[in-house]
Amino acid sequence: MSGSASSKPPVEFWFDFISPFGYLASLRIDEIAARHGREVRWHPVLIGVTVLKVMGLKPLMETPLKREYAAREFDRYCRRHGVRVARAIDAPPMNPLPVARAFAWLLQHAPDQAKRLARAALCDYWALGVDLGAATALNECGIRAGVPTATMARATEDATAASLLRAEVEAAIARGVFGSPYVIVDDEPFFGVDKLDLVDEWLACGGW
Amino acid sequence: MSGSASSKPPVEFWFDFISPFGYLASLRIDEIAARHGREVRWHPVLIGVTVLKVMGLKPLMETPLKREYAAREFDRYCRRHGVRVARAIDAPPMNPLPVARAFAWLLQHAPDQAKRLARAALCDYWALGVDLGAATALNECGIRAGVPTATMARATEDATAASLLRAEVEAAIARGVFGSPYVIVDDEPFFGVDKLDLVDEWLACGGW
Repeated sequence: MSGSASSKPPVEFWFDFISPFGYLASLRIDEIAARHGREVRWHPVLIGVTVLKVMGLKPLMETPLKREYAAREFDRYCRRHGVRVARAIDAPPMNPLPVARAFAWLLQHAPDQAKRLARAALCDYWALGVDLGAATALNECGIRAGVPTATMARATEDATAASLLRAEVEAAIARGVFGSPYVIVDDEPFFGVDKLDLVDEWLACGGW
Repeated sequence: MSGSASSKPPVEFWFDFISPFGYLASLRIDEIAARHGREVRWHPVLIGVTVLKVMGLKPLMETPLKREYAAREFDRYCRRHGVRVARAIDAPPMNPLPVARAFAWLLQHAPDQAKRLARAALCDYWALGVDLGAATALNECGIRAGVPTATMARATEDATAASLLRAEVEAAIARGVFGSPYVIVDDEPFFGVDKLDLVDEWLACGGW
């Protein structure tokens, strides 16, 4: 029935552009899924909504004890996996809304371009230290990533992008998604970059 | 200089008796360390102090979205590792203070008995569903585990046990410990049962 390359349902992956562990997961999730003949559908989530408002918790980097641990764990993961980052995870985050809205708009109107923008934005922000809270930097990022200029302009300027993002976040919450990274494989949820090896195993064996 | 079996410093392991993922880690940590010629020093922590008071967060099972996820992850882990438990992780917890105080007392006064009590208590509570908040059940647990009756009686009745536990928890916090399970290997901290494979790798290769 389907004309897609794979007959198996896609792996679903949620991340927040300002989430350090979401970035780390973004570097591996497509490769893991591809080994098992799966594609990955990327989705935005806003931890400022899920963690702060819905769960009623504090931001990770404002939580005593955990913030120091998280910084250390992030550095350790980067060393182990050979990932280089240009920003400290305790630096004040950029405003994630412009890029998350543009991403949500592309998912709806130009899905082939959406992951392209997301990858480039994550790389710009984490690996190069570029703040994408300003429209100019965001547009340049998308265009360098190969998103057509006119498409990128609409993604960053269309007033419906905010409600498209809101709908994505509400749909995520309705499915139980609360953090970044968060992966759902065949209805099975996995939270955290630590779970990627389990995702791999689950895809290989069909679950326990 | 040392007369102990191993010349390498012990792995340190913190857990709360009422922490489901602490229980799961307790089933594997000694075996992992032993493969690398290490012993494990077990310590009590009280997530009611670290998570609620110091970090200012809510209990896991009162946190929207995360509580449902945690229950599902716990069940999945148990299936994968063949662990059988008698209680749901969303059942109201027992009062952890009596057993944690007895454990802290044994660590100080009869260290050879401390881990014996802890293992038996975790098994009673999680695998058999026994509430150890009452002195009788706790005494019986210790005696069945092989702790001498007189020692067990002192551990549960000595008024200094409460301050010994408090000192343990304060020492844990001073070292950055905030959750259960929490492992420190050669000054490197690992939080969560998901990290046990990394602990294994770290012990094997000396770190990244």
